[in-house]
Amino acid sequence: MEKLAQIYEGKAKKVYATDDDTLCIVDYKDDATAFNGEKKGTIVGKGVINNQMTNRLMAKMEAAGIPTHFVKELSERETLVKKVTIVPLEVIIRNISAGSFAKRYGVNEGIVFSAPTFEFSYKNDDLGDPLLNDEHALALGITNEAEIAQIRKYAYAVNDVLKAFWSSCGVTLVDFKLEFGKTTDGTIVLADEISPDTCRLWDTATGEKLDKDRFRRDMGGVEDAYSEIMRRLVEHDA
Amino acid sequence: MEKLAQIYEGKAKKVYATDDDTLCIVDYKDDATAFNGEKKGTIVGKGVINNQMTNRLMAKMEAAGIPTHFVKELSERETLVKKVTIVPLEVIIRNISAGSFAKRYGVNEGIVFSAPTFEFSYKNDDLGDPLLNDEHALALGITNEAEIAQIRKYAYAVNDVLKAFWSSCGVTLVDFKLEFGKTTDGTIVLADEISPDTCRLWDTATGEKLDKDRFRRDMGGVEDAYSEIMRRLVEHDA
Ligand SMILES: Nc1ncnc2c1ncn2[C@@H]1O[C@H](COP(=O)(O)OP(=O)(O)OP(=O)(O)O)[C@@H](O)[C@H]1O
Ligand SMILES: Nc1ncnc2c1ncn2[C@@H]1O[C@H](COP(=O)(O)OP(=O)(O)OP(=O)(O)O)[C@@H](O)[C@H]1O
Ligand SMILES: [Mg+2]
Ligand SMILES: [Mg+2]
Repeated sequence: MEKLAQIYEGKAKKVYATDDDTLCIVDYKDDATAFNGEKKGTIVGKGVINNQMTNRLMAKMEAAGIPTHFVKELSERETLVKKVTIVPLEVIIRNISAGSFAKRYGVNEGIVFSAPTFEFSYKNDDLGDPLLNDEHALALGITNEAEIAQIRKYAYAVNDVLKAFWSSCGVTLVDFKLEFGKTTDGTIVLADEISPDTCRLWDTATGEKLDKDRFRRDMGGVEDAYSEIMRRLVEHDA
Repeated sequence: MEKLAQIYEGKAKKVYATDDDTLCIVDYKDDATAFNGEKKGTIVGKGVINNQMTNRLMAKMEAAGIPTHFVKELSERETLVKKVTIVPLEVIIRNISAGSFAKRYGVNEGIVFSAPTFEFSYKNDDLGDPLLNDEHALALGITNEAEIAQIRKYAYAVNDVLKAFWSSCGVTLVDFKLEFGKTTDGTIVLADEISPDTCRLWDTATGEKLDKDRFRRDMGGVEDAYSEIMRRLVEHDA
Protein backbone atom coordinates (compact mmCIF):
# COMPACT_ATOMS: atom_id res chain seq x y z
CA MET A 1 0.00 0.00 0.00
CA GLU A 2 1.63 3.23 -1.16
CA LYS A 3 0.83 6.57 0.52
CA LEU A 4 0.26 9.12 -2.24
CA ALA A 5 -0.74 12.80 -2.29
CA GLN A 6 -2.64 14.47 0.53
CA ILE A 7 -6.30 14.79 -0.52
CA TYR A 8 -7.54 16.92 2.37
CA GLU A 9 -6.36 18.47 5.59
CA GLY A 10 -9.05 18.76 8.24
CA LYS A 11 -8.82 20.25 11.69
CA ALA A 12 -7.76 16.98 13.37
CA LYS A 13 -6.63 14.68 10.57
CA LYS A 14 -5.02 14.60 7.16
CA VAL A 15 -6.34 12.31 4.47
CA TYR A 16 -4.03 10.79 1.83
CA ALA A 17 -4.70 8.92 -1.39
CA THR A 18 -3.21 5.47 -1.89
CA ASP A 19 -2.48 3.41 -5.00
CA ASP A 20 -5.85 1.68 -4.46
CA ASP A 21 -8.55 4.21 -5.27
CA THR A 22 -11.09 2.55 -2.94
CA LEU A 23 -8.78 3.18 0.04
CA CYS A 24 -7.22 6.16 1.76
CA ILE A 25 -4.97 6.82 4.75
CA VAL A 26 -5.99 9.03 7.66
CA ASP A 27 -3.20 10.63 9.67
CA TYR A 28 -4.17 11.94 13.12
CA LYS A 29 -2.72 15.29 14.28
CA ASP A 30 -2.32 16.75 17.77
CA ASP A 31 -4.16 19.91 16.64
CA ALA A 32 -7.28 20.72 18.60
CA THR A 33 -9.98 23.21 17.65
CA ALA A 34 -13.29 24.18 19.18
CA PHE A 35 -16.24 26.48 18.52
CA ASN A 36 -16.13 25.94 14.77
CA GLY A 37 -12.37 26.60 14.59
CA GLU A 38 -12.37 29.84 16.64
CA LYS A 39 -10.31 28.31 19.44
CA LYS A 40 -7.09 26.58 18.41
CA GLY A 41 -4.47 24.62 20.33
CA THR A 42 -2.42 21.47 20.63
CA ILE A 43 -3.06 18.42 22.77
CA VAL A 44 0.26 16.60 22.87
CA GLY A 45 -0.17 12.90 22.08
CA LYS A 46 -3.81 13.26 21.05
CA GLY A 47 -3.22 12.04 17.49
CA VAL A 48 -1.75 8.76 18.70
CA ILE A 49 -4.52 8.21 21.26
CA ASN A 50 -7.36 9.11 18.90
CA ASN A 51 -6.01 6.89 16.16
CA GLN A 52 -5.55 3.85 18.40
CA MET A 53 -8.77 4.40 20.33
CA THR A 54 -10.83 4.85 17.17
CA ASN A 55 -9.44 1.65 15.70
CA ARG A 56 -10.13 -0.43 18.80
CA LEU A 57 -13.66 0.95 19.03
CA MET A 58 -14.31 0.47 15.30
CA ALA A 59 -13.34 -3.18 15.80
CA LYS A 60 -16.03 -3.46 18.48
CA MET A 61 -18.56 -1.96 16.07
CA GLU A 62 -17.66 -4.49 13.36
CA ALA A 63 -18.04 -7.27 15.92
CA ALA A 64 -21.54 -5.95 16.67
CA GLY A 65 -22.49 -6.01 12.98
CA ILE A 66 -22.01 -2.31 12.25
CA PRO A 67 -19.97 -1.88 9.06
CA THR A 68 -17.11 0.63 9.34
CA HIS A 69 -14.44 2.20 7.14
CA PHE A 70 -11.63 0.54 9.15
CA VAL A 71 -9.11 -1.57 7.23
CA LYS A 72 -5.72 -1.62 9.01
CA GLU A 73 -3.68 0.37 11.49
CA LEU A 74 -0.46 1.40 9.72
CA SER A 75 1.41 3.27 12.44
CA GLU A 76 0.85 5.15 15.70
CA ARG A 77 -0.96 7.93 13.85
CA GLU A 78 -1.92 6.40 10.50
CA THR A 79 -4.74 4.09 9.54
CA LEU A 80 -5.81 2.64 6.22
CA VAL A 81 -9.56 3.09 5.72
CA LYS A 82 -12.11 2.57 2.97
CA LYS A 83 -12.41 5.78 1.03
CA VAL A 84 -15.95 7.07 1.42
CA THR A 85 -18.02 10.00 0.34
CA ILE A 86 -18.99 11.48 3.69
CA VAL A 87 -22.77 12.02 4.09
CA PRO A 88 -22.73 15.71 5.08
CA LEU A 89 -24.70 15.13 8.26
CA GLU A 90 -23.17 14.95 11.70
CA VAL A 91 -25.07 12.38 13.71
CA ILE A 92 -25.32 13.14 17.42
CA ILE A 93 -26.65 10.75 20.04
CA ARG A 94 -27.24 12.11 23.52
CA ASN A 95 -27.82 10.06 26.67
CA ILE A 96 -27.43 12.98 29.08
CA SER A 97 -27.87 16.74 28.55
CA ALA A 98 -24.65 18.65 27.97
CA GLY A 99 -22.93 21.17 25.70
CA SER A 100 -24.94 22.75 22.90
CA PHE A 101 -28.10 20.89 23.92
CA ALA A 102 -28.06 22.35 27.44
CA LYS A 103 -27.29 25.80 26.09
CA ARG A 104 -29.80 25.74 23.23
CA TYR A 105 -32.73 24.59 25.38
CA GLY A 106 -31.76 26.36 28.60
CA VAL A 107 -31.39 23.24 30.76
CA ASN A 108 -28.66 22.08 33.11
CA GLU A 109 -25.98 19.63 32.10
CA GLY A 110 -26.34 16.15 33.54
CA ILE A 111 -30.02 15.41 33.01
CA VAL A 112 -30.27 11.69 32.19
CA PHE A 113 -32.77 11.17 29.36
CA SER A 114 -35.24 8.31 29.59
CA ALA A 115 -34.30 7.45 25.99
CA PRO A 116 -31.29 8.58 23.93
CA THR A 117 -31.92 11.40 21.44
CA PHE A 118 -30.79 11.30 17.83
CA GLU A 119 -30.05 14.46 15.91
CA PHE A 120 -28.51 15.57 12.65
CA SER A 121 -26.57 18.68 12.00
CA TYR A 122 -25.73 19.81 8.52
CA LYS A 123 -21.95 19.43 8.11
CA ASN A 124 -21.19 22.90 6.81
CA ASP A 125 -18.64 25.05 8.65
CA ASP A 126 -19.74 28.27 6.90
CA LEU A 127 -23.25 27.82 8.27
CA GLY A 128 -22.00 26.70 11.70
CA ASP A 129 -23.20 23.09 11.34
CA PRO A 130 -26.88 23.95 11.92
CA LEU A 131 -29.28 21.46 13.48
CA LEU A 132 -31.72 19.90 11.05
CA ASN A 133 -34.41 17.26 11.16
CA ASP A 134 -35.08 14.31 8.83
CA GLU A 135 -37.52 16.23 6.69
CA HIS A 136 -35.08 19.11 6.24
CA ALA A 137 -32.37 16.67 5.15
CA LEU A 138 -34.78 15.22 2.58
CA ALA A 139 -35.97 18.63 1.39
CA LEU A 140 -32.36 19.76 0.91
CA GLY A 141 -31.65 16.60 -1.09
CA ILE A 142 -28.80 15.61 1.26
CA THR A 143 -29.97 12.04 1.72
CA ASN A 144 -32.98 9.76 1.29
CA GLU A 145 -35.33 7.93 3.65
CA ALA A 146 -33.60 4.56 3.33
CA GLU A 147 -30.22 6.06 4.21
CA ILE A 148 -31.68 7.93 7.18
CA ALA A 149 -33.25 4.72 8.50
CA GLN A 150 -29.96 2.86 8.06
CA ILE A 151 -27.91 5.60 9.74
CA ARG A 152 -30.35 5.89 12.63
CA LYS A 153 -30.26 2.12 13.22
CA TYR A 154 -26.46 2.04 13.16
CA ALA A 155 -26.13 5.10 15.41
CA TYR A 156 -28.33 3.60 18.13
CA ALA A 157 -26.39 0.34 17.85
CA VAL A 158 -23.12 2.26 18.27
CA ASN A 159 -24.59 3.87 21.38
CA ASP A 160 -25.51 0.50 22.87
CA VAL A 161 -22.04 -0.93 22.29
CA LEU A 162 -20.15 2.18 23.39
CA LYS A 163 -22.28 2.79 26.46
CA ALA A 164 -21.81 -0.77 27.69
CA PHE A 165 -18.08 -0.76 27.01
CA TRP A 166 -17.37 2.61 28.64
CA SER A 167 -19.52 1.61 31.56
CA SER A 168 -17.25 -1.41 32.12
CA CYS A 169 -14.37 1.11 32.31
CA GLY A 170 -16.14 3.25 34.93
CA VAL A 171 -16.92 5.89 32.31
CA THR A 172 -20.32 7.39 31.50
CA LEU A 173 -21.03 8.02 27.82
CA VAL A 174 -22.84 11.38 27.74
CA ASP A 175 -23.07 12.05 24.01
CA PHE A 176 -21.08 11.63 20.80
CA LYS A 177 -20.87 12.63 17.15
CA LEU A 178 -20.59 10.15 14.28
CA GLU A 179 -20.01 10.55 10.57
CA PHE A 180 -21.20 8.03 8.01
CA GLY A 181 -20.00 7.66 4.46
CA LYS A 182 -20.73 5.78 1.28
CA THR A 183 -18.05 3.45 -0.06
CA THR A 184 -17.33 3.24 -3.78
CA ASP A 185 -19.96 0.45 -4.03
CA GLY A 186 -22.61 2.62 -2.30
CA THR A 187 -22.64 0.86 1.09
CA ILE A 188 -23.21 3.08 4.14
CA VAL A 189 -20.43 2.60 6.71
CA LEU A 190 -19.42 4.29 9.93
CA ALA A 191 -16.43 6.56 9.12
CA ASP A 192 -14.31 9.28 10.74
CA GLU A 193 -13.36 8.73 14.38
CA ILE A 194 -14.64 7.77 17.85
CA SER A 195 -12.46 9.51 20.42
CA PRO A 196 -12.47 12.01 23.29
CA ASP A 197 -12.62 14.68 20.53
CA THR A 198 -16.02 13.37 19.43
CA CYS A 199 -17.50 11.87 22.64
CA ARG A 200 -18.32 13.33 26.03
CA LEU A 201 -16.98 10.89 28.63
CA TRP A 202 -17.43 11.45 32.35
CA ASP A 203 -15.74 9.47 35.10
CA THR A 204 -18.70 7.60 36.58
CA ALA A 205 -17.44 7.77 40.16
CA THR A 206 -16.31 11.42 40.29
CA GLY A 207 -18.12 13.09 37.37
CA GLU A 208 -14.77 14.35 36.11
CA LYS A 209 -14.67 15.19 32.40
CA LEU A 210 -12.32 12.96 30.41
CA ASP A 211 -12.80 14.51 26.97
CA LYS A 212 -12.33 17.59 24.78
CA ASP A 213 -14.53 19.73 27.04
CA ARG A 214 -11.40 20.15 29.20
CA PHE A 215 -9.82 21.91 26.21
CA ARG A 216 -12.98 23.81 25.17
CA ARG A 217 -13.49 25.13 28.69
CA ASP A 218 -9.82 25.72 29.63
CA MET A 219 -10.08 23.27 32.52
CA GLY A 220 -6.47 22.07 32.33
CA GLY A 221 -5.37 18.45 32.58
CA VAL A 222 -6.27 17.86 28.95
CA GLU A 223 -3.41 15.50 28.09
CA ASP A 224 -3.92 13.61 31.37
CA ALA A 225 -7.59 13.08 30.59
CA TYR A 226 -6.84 11.68 27.12
CA SER A 227 -4.17 9.38 28.62
CA GLU A 228 -6.46 8.23 31.40
CA ILE A 229 -9.30 7.36 29.05
CA MET A 230 -6.86 5.47 26.77
CA ARG A 231 -5.44 3.64 29.79
CA ARG A 232 -8.90 2.48 30.82
CA LEU A 233 -9.74 1.39 27.29
CA VAL A 234 -6.58 -0.72 27.03
CA GLU A 235 -7.14 -2.17 30.50
CA HIS A 236 -10.72 -3.25 29.77
CA ASP A 237 -10.44 -4.12 26.08
CA ALA A 238 -10.57 -7.88 25.86
CA MET B 1 -70.52 35.82 28.12
CA GLU B 2 -68.81 38.34 30.31
CA LYS B 3 -65.31 39.65 29.51
CA LEU B 4 -63.29 39.63 32.73
CA ALA B 5 -59.67 40.46 33.59
CA GLN B 6 -56.85 40.36 31.06
CA ILE B 7 -54.88 37.13 31.60
CA TYR B 8 -52.01 37.84 29.23
CA GLU B 9 -50.80 40.40 26.74
CA GLY B 10 -48.77 38.96 23.87
CA LYS B 11 -47.10 40.75 21.01
CA ALA B 12 -50.16 40.60 18.71
CA LYS B 13 -53.11 39.74 20.94
CA LYS B 14 -54.52 40.17 24.41
CA VAL B 15 -56.20 37.28 26.17
CA TYR B 16 -59.08 37.82 28.64
CA ALA B 17 -60.80 35.55 31.11
CA THR B 18 -64.57 35.10 30.90
CA ASP B 19 -67.16 33.95 33.43
CA ASP B 20 -66.82 30.44 31.93
CA ASP B 21 -63.44 29.09 32.96
CA THR B 22 -63.20 26.80 29.91
CA LEU B 23 -63.38 29.84 27.59
CA CYS B 24 -61.38 33.00 26.98
CA ILE B 25 -61.51 35.99 24.66
CA VAL B 26 -58.67 36.92 22.32
CA ASP B 27 -58.41 40.54 21.25
CA TYR B 28 -56.27 41.24 18.16
CA LYS B 29 -54.01 44.31 18.18
CA ASP B 30 -52.43 46.25 15.30
CA ASP B 31 -48.99 45.85 16.92
CA ALA B 32 -46.40 44.11 14.80
CA THR B 33 -43.08 42.71 15.94
CA ALA B 34 -40.33 40.77 14.22
CA PHE B 35 -37.01 39.14 15.00
CA ASN B 36 -38.09 37.99 18.44
CA GLY B 37 -39.44 41.42 19.36
CA GLU B 38 -36.38 43.45 18.27
CA LYS B 39 -38.31 45.24 15.53
CA LYS B 40 -41.57 46.91 16.54
CA GLY B 41 -44.27 48.74 14.62
CA THR B 42 -47.95 49.10 13.81
CA ILE B 43 -49.87 47.73 10.87
CA VAL B 44 -53.10 49.72 10.79
CA GLY B 45 -56.14 47.45 10.50
CA LYS B 46 -54.13 44.25 11.02
CA GLY B 47 -56.02 43.25 14.17
CA VAL B 48 -59.36 43.30 12.38
CA ILE B 49 -58.04 41.40 9.38
CA ASN B 50 -56.18 38.77 11.41
CA ASN B 51 -59.19 38.18 13.65
CA GLN B 52 -61.64 37.75 10.79
CA MET B 53 -59.23 35.81 8.59
CA THR B 54 -58.29 33.42 11.41
CA ASN B 55 -61.94 32.73 12.16
CA ARG B 56 -62.86 32.01 8.56
CA LEU B 57 -59.86 29.72 8.17
CA MET B 58 -60.52 27.97 11.48
CA ALA B 59 -64.04 27.23 10.20
CA LYS B 60 -62.49 25.53 7.15
CA MET B 61 -60.29 23.44 9.47
CA GLU B 62 -63.30 22.34 11.52
CA ALA B 63 -65.09 21.41 8.26
CA ALA B 64 -62.07 19.25 7.36
CA GLY B 65 -62.22 17.43 10.71
CA ILE B 66 -59.43 19.34 12.47
CA PRO B 67 -60.59 20.43 15.95
CA THR B 68 -59.88 24.08 16.77
CA HIS B 69 -60.25 26.48 19.69
CA PHE B 70 -62.77 28.64 17.78
CA VAL B 71 -66.13 29.29 19.44
CA LYS B 72 -67.62 32.59 18.24
CA GLU B 73 -66.58 35.91 16.72
CA LEU B 74 -67.64 38.63 19.17
CA SER B 75 -66.58 41.80 17.38
CA GLU B 76 -64.19 43.04 14.68
CA ARG B 77 -61.21 42.30 16.90
CA GLU B 78 -62.53 39.90 19.54
CA THR B 79 -63.20 36.19 19.42
CA LEU B 80 -64.39 33.74 22.02
CA VAL B 81 -62.18 30.64 22.05
CA LYS B 82 -61.75 27.53 24.13
CA LYS B 83 -59.17 28.23 26.78
CA VAL B 84 -56.21 25.95 26.21
CA THR B 85 -52.83 25.23 27.68
CA ILE B 86 -50.59 25.98 24.74
CA VAL B 87 -48.15 23.14 23.92
CA PRO B 88 -44.87 25.14 23.97
CA LEU B 89 -43.89 24.04 20.47
CA GLU B 90 -44.30 26.16 17.38
CA VAL B 91 -45.20 23.91 14.49
CA ILE B 92 -43.87 25.03 11.12
CA ILE B 93 -44.81 23.50 7.81
CA ARG B 94 -42.82 24.54 4.75
CA ASN B 95 -43.77 23.94 1.12
CA ILE B 96 -41.13 26.26 -0.34
CA SER B 97 -37.80 27.47 1.09
CA ALA B 98 -37.91 30.94 2.65
CA GLY B 99 -37.01 32.94 5.73
CA SER B 100 -35.08 31.24 8.52
CA PHE B 101 -34.88 27.96 6.57
CA ALA B 102 -33.12 29.60 3.60
CA LYS B 103 -30.80 31.50 5.91
CA ARG B 104 -30.02 28.59 8.25
CA TYR B 105 -29.17 26.13 5.45
CA GLY B 106 -27.66 28.63 2.99
CA VAL B 107 -30.16 28.07 0.17
CA ASN B 108 -32.19 30.48 -1.95
CA GLU B 109 -35.79 31.35 -1.22
CA GLY B 110 -38.33 29.84 -3.59
CA ILE B 111 -37.14 26.22 -3.84
CA VAL B 112 -40.29 24.08 -4.08
CA PHE B 113 -39.89 20.98 -1.90
CA SER B 114 -41.04 17.63 -3.26
CA ALA B 115 -42.80 17.08 0.08
CA PRO B 116 -43.68 19.59 2.81
CA THR B 117 -41.36 19.70 5.81
CA PHE B 118 -42.58 19.66 9.40
CA GLU B 119 -40.56 21.22 12.18
CA PHE B 120 -40.91 22.18 15.81
CA SER B 121 -39.37 25.09 17.57
CA TYR B 122 -39.37 25.38 21.31
CA LYS B 123 -41.69 28.31 22.20
CA ASN B 124 -39.31 30.20 24.46
CA ASP B 125 -38.52 33.84 23.68
CA ASP B 126 -35.50 33.93 26.01
CA LEU B 127 -33.89 31.11 24.05
CA GLY B 128 -34.93 32.57 20.68
CA ASP B 129 -37.44 29.80 19.87
CA PRO B 130 -34.76 27.22 19.01
CA LEU B 131 -35.41 24.46 16.48
CA LEU B 132 -35.86 21.03 18.01
CA ASN B 133 -36.70 17.55 16.78
CA ASP B 134 -39.22 15.03 18.10
CA GLU B 135 -36.67 13.28 20.29
CA HIS B 136 -35.56 16.54 21.86
CA ALA B 137 -39.16 17.43 22.66
CA LEU B 138 -39.57 14.04 24.34
CA ALA B 139 -36.24 14.29 26.21
CA LEU B 140 -37.21 17.73 27.51
CA GLY B 141 -40.55 16.33 28.69
CA ILE B 142 -42.48 18.93 26.63
CA THR B 143 -44.85 16.42 25.07
CA ASN B 144 -45.31 12.70 24.40
CA GLU B 145 -45.30 10.50 21.30
CA ALA B 146 -49.07 10.33 20.99
CA GLU B 147 -49.38 14.12 21.08
CA ILE B 148 -46.61 14.53 18.52
CA ALA B 149 -48.33 12.07 16.17
CA GLN B 150 -51.65 13.88 16.60
CA ILE B 151 -50.11 17.33 16.05
CA ARG B 152 -48.19 16.16 12.99
CA LYS B 153 -51.33 14.67 11.44
CA TYR B 154 -53.34 17.83 12.06
CA ALA B 155 -50.56 20.11 10.79
CA TYR B 156 -50.31 18.28 7.46
CA ALA B 157 -54.10 18.36 7.16
CA VAL B 158 -54.07 22.13 7.79
CA ASN B 159 -51.46 22.43 5.02
CA ASP B 160 -53.63 20.49 2.56
CA VAL B 161 -56.71 22.62 3.27
CA LEU B 162 -54.85 25.95 3.34
CA LYS B 163 -52.78 25.24 0.24
CA ALA B 164 -55.85 24.33 -1.79
CA PHE B 165 -57.85 27.31 -0.57
CA TRP B 166 -55.10 29.89 -1.12
CA SER B 167 -54.40 28.38 -4.52
CA SER B 168 -58.04 29.06 -5.49
CA CYS B 169 -57.34 32.71 -4.54
CA GLY B 170 -54.22 32.90 -6.75
CA VAL B 171 -52.00 32.76 -3.67
CA THR B 172 -49.12 30.35 -3.04
CA LEU B 173 -48.78 29.06 0.52
CA VAL B 174 -45.04 29.05 1.20
CA ASP B 175 -44.92 28.19 4.90
CA PHE B 176 -46.77 28.82 8.15
CA LYS B 177 -46.60 28.49 11.93
CA LEU B 178 -49.27 26.83 14.05
CA GLU B 179 -49.79 26.51 17.78
CA PHE B 180 -51.71 23.67 19.37
CA GLY B 181 -53.21 23.58 22.83
CA LYS B 182 -54.90 21.24 25.27
CA THR B 183 -58.43 22.09 26.33
CA THR B 184 -59.56 21.62 29.91
CA ASP B 185 -60.64 18.04 29.03
CA GLY B 186 -57.18 17.25 27.53
CA THR B 187 -58.13 17.31 23.84
CA ILE B 188 -55.49 18.66 21.44
CA VAL B 189 -56.92 21.47 19.29
CA LEU B 190 -55.50 23.97 16.84
CA ALA B 191 -55.23 27.33 18.65
CA ASP B 192 -53.76 30.80 18.16
CA GLU B 193 -54.14 32.32 14.69
CA ILE B 194 -53.78 31.72 10.94
CA SER B 195 -53.02 35.04 9.30
CA PRO B 196 -50.44 36.95 7.22
CA ASP B 197 -48.55 37.32 10.53
CA THR B 198 -48.08 33.55 10.72
CA CYS B 199 -48.12 32.45 7.04
CA ARG B 200 -45.94 33.33 4.05
CA LEU B 201 -48.28 34.03 1.15
CA TRP B 202 -47.01 34.90 -2.32
CA ASP B 203 -49.13 36.14 -5.20
CA THR B 204 -48.98 33.16 -7.57
CA ALA B 205 -48.92 35.27 -10.75
CA THR B 206 -46.39 37.93 -9.73
CA GLY B 207 -44.52 36.39 -6.78
CA GLU B 208 -45.35 39.48 -4.74
CA LYS B 209 -45.24 38.97 -0.96
CA LEU B 210 -48.63 39.41 0.72
CA ASP B 211 -47.60 38.80 4.33
CA LYS B 212 -45.56 40.03 7.30
CA ASP B 213 -42.28 39.75 5.38
CA ARG B 214 -43.18 43.18 3.92
CA PHE B 215 -42.95 44.53 7.48
CA ARG B 216 -39.90 42.43 8.47
CA ARG B 217 -37.98 43.55 5.39
CA ASP B 218 -39.20 47.20 5.23
CA MET B 219 -40.71 46.61 1.80
CA GLY B 220 -43.58 49.08 2.20
CA GLY B 221 -47.17 48.40 1.16
CA VAL B 222 -47.74 46.38 4.33
CA GLU B 223 -51.36 47.50 4.97
CA ASP B 224 -52.21 47.07 1.27
CA ALA B 225 -50.89 43.51 1.31
CA TYR B 226 -53.00 42.59 4.35
CA SER B 227 -56.08 44.20 2.74
CA GLU B 228 -55.47 42.46 -0.57
CA ILE B 229 -55.11 39.03 1.01
CA MET B 230 -58.31 39.62 3.03
CA ARG B 231 -60.14 40.79 -0.10
CA ARG B 232 -59.19 37.59 -1.91
CA LEU B 233 -60.22 35.44 1.02
CA VAL B 234 -63.67 37.07 1.20
CA GLU B 235 -64.08 36.85 -2.57
CA HIS B 236 -63.28 33.13 -2.71
CA ASP B 237 -64.73 32.00 0.61
CA ALA B 238 -67.91 30.09 -0.22
N1 LIG C 1 -13.14 6.96 5.36
C1 LIG C 1 -13.08 8.25 5.00
N2 LIG C 1 -12.97 8.59 3.68
C2 LIG C 1 -12.90 9.91 3.32
N3 LIG C 1 -12.94 10.94 4.17
C3 LIG C 1 -13.06 10.64 5.49
C4 LIG C 1 -13.13 9.30 5.96
N4 LIG C 1 -13.26 9.34 7.32
C5 LIG C 1 -13.27 10.65 7.67
N5 LIG C 1 -13.15 11.45 6.58
C6 LIG C 1 -13.09 12.91 6.52
O1 LIG C 1 -11.77 13.31 6.79
C7 LIG C 1 -11.77 14.71 7.02
C8 LIG C 1 -10.66 15.11 7.97
O2 LIG C 1 -11.04 14.83 9.30
P1 LIG C 1 -11.04 15.96 10.41
O3 LIG C 1 -11.65 15.34 11.63
O4 LIG C 1 -9.70 16.60 10.53
O5 LIG C 1 -12.04 17.02 9.75
P2 LIG C 1 -12.66 18.28 10.50
O6 LIG C 1 -11.77 19.44 10.29
O7 LIG C 1 -13.04 17.88 11.89
O8 LIG C 1 -14.02 18.53 9.77
P3 LIG C 1 -14.39 18.75 8.29
O9 LIG C 1 -15.14 17.51 7.95
O10 LIG C 1 -15.25 19.96 8.37
O11 LIG C 1 -13.16 18.93 7.48
C9 LIG C 1 -13.18 15.07 7.44
O12 LIG C 1 -13.78 15.83 6.41
C10 LIG C 1 -13.85 13.69 7.55
O13 LIG C 1 -15.23 13.80 7.24
N1 LIG D 1 -57.14 29.30 22.86
C1 LIG D 1 -56.15 29.85 23.55
N2 LIG D 1 -56.10 29.75 24.91
C2 LIG D 1 -55.09 30.30 25.62
N3 LIG D 1 -54.07 30.98 25.06
C3 LIG D 1 -54.04 31.09 23.70
C4 LIG D 1 -55.07 30.54 22.89
N4 LIG D 1 -54.76 30.82 21.60
C5 LIG D 1 -53.60 31.50 21.61
N5 LIG D 1 -53.16 31.67 22.87
C6 LIG D 1 -51.94 32.38 23.32
O1 LIG D 1 -52.23 33.76 23.38
C7 LIG D 1 -51.02 34.47 23.53
C8 LIG D 1 -51.10 35.83 22.89
O2 LIG D 1 -50.94 35.73 21.50
P1 LIG D 1 -49.80 36.55 20.75
O3 LIG D 1 -49.83 36.08 19.33
O4 LIG D 1 -49.94 38.01 21.00
O5 LIG D 1 -48.50 36.02 21.48
P2 LIG D 1 -47.02 36.28 21.02
O6 LIG D 1 -46.52 37.51 21.66
O7 LIG D 1 -46.94 36.14 19.52
O8 LIG D 1 -46.23 35.05 21.55
P3 LIG D 1 -46.05 34.45 22.97
O9 LIG D 1 -46.77 33.16 22.88
O10 LIG D 1 -44.57 34.29 23.07
O11 LIG D 1 -46.65 35.36 23.97
C9 LIG D 1 -49.93 33.53 22.99
O12 LIG D 1 -49.13 33.11 24.10
C10 LIG D 1 -50.73 32.37 22.43
O13 LIG D 1 -49.99 31.16 22.52
MG1 LIG E 1 -13.53 15.95 12.47
MG1 LIG F 1 -48.23 35.00 18.38
